[in-house]
Amino acid sequence: MIQAFHELVIATRGRGLVEFTDEVEKWIEKNHFRDGLLTLHLRHTSASLLIQENADPDVRRDLEAFFKRLAPDGDPLFIHTTEGDDDMPAHVRTALTAVNLSIPVRGGRPVLGTWQGVYLWEHRTHPHSRRIAMHFIGE
Amino acid sequence: MIQAFHELVIATRGRGLVEFTDEVEKWIEKNHFRDGLLTLHLRHTSASLLIQENADPDVRRDLEAFFKRLAPDGDPLFIHTTEGDDDMPAHVRTALTAVNLSIPVRGGRPVLGTWQGVYLWEHRTHPHSRRIAMHFIGE
Amino acid sequence: MIQAFHELVIATRGRGLVEFTDEVEKWIEKNHFRDGLLTLHLRHTSASLLIQENADPDVRRDLEAFFKRLAPDGDPLFIHTTEGDDDMPAHVRTALTAVNLSIPVRGGRPVLGTWQGVYLWEHRTHPHSRRIAMHFIGE
Repeated sequence: MIQAFHELVIATRGRGLVEFTDEVEKWIEKNHFRDGLLTLHLRHTSASLLIQENADPDVRRDLEAFFKRLAPDGDPLFIHTTEGDDDMPAHVRTALTAVNLSIPVRGGRPVLGTWQGVYLWEHRTHPHSRRIAMHFIGE
Repeated sequence: MIQAFHELVIATRGRGLVEFTDEVEKWIEKNHFRDGLLTLHLRHTSASLLIQENADPDVRRDLEAFFKRLAPDGDPLFIHTTEGDDDMPAHVRTALTAVNLSIPVRGGRPVLGTWQGVYLWEHRTHPHSRRIAMHFIGE
Repeated sequence: MIQAFHELVIATRGRGLVEFTDEVEKWIEKNHFRDGLLTLHLRHTSASLLIQENADPDVRRDLEAFFKRLAPDGDPLFIHTTEGDDDMPAHVRTALTAVNLSIPVRGGRPVLGTWQGVYLWEHRTHPHSRRIAMHFIGE
């Protein structure tokens, strides 16, 4: 049984979903991991990790539209507005989704379903550099 | 230290919560796992895994009612409607909940609380066959 | 490779976020864990585990305000009201957030970001005693 760590840095272009399934698979392949458990942890409080459909881009557009309506920028409910109108909505979106994922790896591949992709969801309107800690334990 | 994999297939009857705590416990017992970490990963983007109260069925009814109001079928906000009125609301419900769970196992049992049950939450209105990847690492 | 278990008990003062990052770090230090995976599992269905900003307390106030508006106490939509007006909203908040977290540990510290704290989120209005199962696997 072995374990390994890696940090992935993703530059976002502002609010939206960035797929990084390839980067995850490449790390597994490069290290010849066969069977085990992969954990991803996003080290931020205004972005999320999400597993979602990777076929029709309209799904990403609609997810964004839904969350924009649910937690609108500039909502007068919020008092934490130091970093702008999108600051607190970003924290709310993070609370409503997830910052860590646990995905079993079998036969050298994450056991994702046919339509599942792994995404970084940037919730701030401006571009950010986001760090994802990756951990593998297994064989 | 050992690890093991299993795939659980659950046939849903359309939208609603299906408890499968028993199947999880049976897999642990059958394999004589004592102490370790259990990971469940649902391989779909329009259903979720949820840990919730398993006593009063009204809780499930109310959860369903809340999510139906929060992400109503046929919402004109959505453009991804190829598979029907319930397609995009199902993706939204999945984003708002979870597709993987991590539960420690101690003394041969998952460390669930007295009222916690493990559920598959089907978000589509029609019945589906859903696959859950199970992974155990420990002793 | 070793593993270890611990149960943390936190007394809440009613609805609100209670940070316990220190307790997590102390458990790791006391046991001299260096590299591995930490899993936290909350054994309740009306509270959550949340990773959120630990700098400005206004963020916690605003998160609370948002969830109060999203799932208001006494909502006539709900029929499961045996334990009071806040009973079903607490289950809804739990479903919308998480009861387990997976955090890699490297060099003796959880790989949390600069602004990330680990919180227990009490969703009931009255004080409760909440139990969190902790599991570590690694070296």
